[in-house]
Amino acid sequence: MGKLIEDFETYRTKMNDRIMESSNTNIKRFFALDTTTYAEGALDVKTKEMLGLVASMVLRCDDCIKYHLGKCHEAGVKHDEMNEVFMIANLVGGSIVIPHYRRAVEYWAELNEA
Amino acid sequence: MGKLIEDFETYRTKMNDRIMESSNTNIKRFFALDTTTYAEGALDVKTKEMLGLVASMVLRCDDCIKYHLGKCHEAGVKHDEMNEVFMIANLVGGSIVIPHYRRAVEYWAELNEA
Amino acid sequence: MGKLIEDFETYRTKMNDRIMESSNTNIKRFFALDTTTYAEGALDVKTKEMLGLVASMVLRCDDCIKYHLGKCHEAGVKHDEMNEVFMIANLVGGSIVIPHYRRAVEYWAELNEA
Amino acid sequence: MGKLIEDFETYRTKMNDRIMESSNTNIKRFFALDTTTYAEGALDVKTKEMLGLVASMVLRCDDCIKYHLGKCHEAGVKHDEMNEVFMIANLVGGSIVIPHYRRAVEYWAELNEA
Amino acid sequence: MGKLIEDFETYRTKMNDRIMESSNTNIKRFFALDTTTYAEGALDVKTKEMLGLVASMVLRCDDCIKYHLGKCHEAGVKHDEMNEVFMIANLVGGSIVIPHYRRAVEYWAELNEA
Amino acid sequence: MGKLIEDFETYRTKMNDRIMESSNTNIKRFFALDTTTYAEGALDVKTKEMLGLVASMVLRCDDCIKYHLGKCHEAGVKHDEMNEVFMIANLVGGSIVIPHYRRAVEYWAELNEA
Repeated sequence: MGKLIEDFETYRTKMNDRIMESSNTNIKRFFALDTTTYAEGALDVKTKEMLGLVASMVLRCDDCIKYHLGKCHEAGVKHDEMNEVFMIANLVGGSIVIPHYRRAVEYWAELNEA
Repeated sequence: MGKLIEDFETYRTKMNDRIMESSNTNIKRFFALDTTTYAEGALDVKTKEMLGLVASMVLRCDDCIKYHLGKCHEAGVKHDEMNEVFMIANLVGGSIVIPHYRRAVEYWAELNEA
Repeated sequence: MGKLIEDFETYRTKMNDRIMESSNTNIKRFFALDTTTYAEGALDVKTKEMLGLVASMVLRCDDCIKYHLGKCHEAGVKHDEMNEVFMIANLVGGSIVIPHYRRAVEYWAELNEA
Repeated sequence: MGKLIEDFETYRTKMNDRIMESSNTNIKRFFALDTTTYAEGALDVKTKEMLGLVASMVLRCDDCIKYHLGKCHEAGVKHDEMNEVFMIANLVGGSIVIPHYRRAVEYWAELNEA
Repeated sequence: MGKLIEDFETYRTKMNDRIMESSNTNIKRFFALDTTTYAEGALDVKTKEMLGLVASMVLRCDDCIKYHLGKCHEAGVKHDEMNEVFMIANLVGGSIVIPHYRRAVEYWAELNEA
Repeated sequence: MGKLIEDFETYRTKMNDRIMESSNTNIKRFFALDTTTYAEGALDVKTKEMLGLVASMVLRCDDCIKYHLGKCHEAGVKHDEMNEVFMIANLVGGSIVIPHYRRAVEYWAELNEA
């Protein structure tokens, strides 16, 4: 596993565990909803993860982008498809997205090296 | 054609025409890019329009939402699929998206009545 | 009831009813969570509604602002307290919040006339 | 005076007057700061108003855009210059800015007809 | 003092000192306003700091979140109360807030260890 | 060259090179548009770079801020002028901009030491 992926996954797991211990019922429900929302339904997981990714990119959250890139990779999104998701994010969100896009390209490469 | 759709389309066409007359070359290139980005490619038009919609919803732009709802309708997005796009938008963007979601539901209904 | 309040409440109720009919389970759960989050808990309803209001103001969602203004009014927020919430919203969110603040002042006045 | 300009100015003046009566000292200081910030200084008023406009466009606040368009007009911003400000706003902020850009073009035309 | 707190406070103090030396009068007034806004008034400091925190969370600014977490800790916000502020921020701002919430939980724990 | 500048430039160049190899035609067009937009036109480069900077500050993108600070420095923006750009960004964007402003002040100082 590449270093960017490992750092992201380790911190995310550590803090999610701590949140499950220390948070309240509503927060736990919100996290549960965050999981079920991306489950196979009328839309398949691959489409949903691309939707989660483009939303994360235009809102410019690096960790959210990493998470959905990982899920897109698992769901089999191909390089050409990913470039089209990236383009929609850059177009809709504007050039302000570019630094996040750079980091996304780096992380996506690491996912595909593994 | 329903009233919401007609109002949106009329104003959009009028102003786009005026922009094509009065804007500069870079703006025209930007508008051209906005069109080619959603063309069939590695991803089909339906997927791309759902991506454009979810990006518009989390950024909370009512006119952008209307535009992509219209395109999603043309591309054959079904009711159950649309609900899953709406859910991802509400989840990622938060309850602040809800008023835009309400207006999206109204516009989507008008598109489906036609 | 003032006209601004009536227009807001009527549309909100109509669309929430339609959403309850047409949406999926996750959306219904999200709406349920939106209700329980503001219930009396470790913090009282008045504090929670001011928190919801300031969040809505810095994110600049007029309908969300109206909703929480209504709830703040019910919870007994006083004029001087409201001005301090308004100031925090203007300060944190910047002058871009001012047009939303103007509409909030108008709506708050209507709530207090009733 | 065109209708868009009159509607904007009338409401803005009415609410600013009410705010001066009903707000607290910090809000009044914030409004004062909002005025002095755009005064002639190391940068001239024209440059500052273009800065205020581009900031308002990427943050997508229609009323803020109208306000700074009015001030840019007073400061003598020319059509070709305005198109370049519009382009920077569309590029940095992305296609999500386009509906606000459409309304800006309409308002700018009204300012130049007067 | 924990490492996260120390790093944040050291950099903040260093840069605020430099800003006081190098900035202009309006910037100094803006910083002064940033201080007086959170002073005891019609609302107590604890409520105001929770308002500042929730605004910072939905706007997703890690440093602003750290600052207001520190102030909330000083003002005596309890664990159960903080969880309710966190929930409102996650709900209103959406799942895009979660990575900032994770870092907030870590910082809040460090504040409470001291 | 200072360390902040070197780190920023090195990573930016590395990733832009990789993007030119791996991206699609639309993304390359978008990057080309990002360059031509800031070229001398009806407005001079200095004004355009200040516009790019203020847009980047209110949208709170540190890398975009660094990029435009570098370009403003090349274009000869003076200290007093920069403070007025900073003030407009803080005012319009609000106190949520302050942490980005602190980092901007640090980077601007490094640019001026060189």
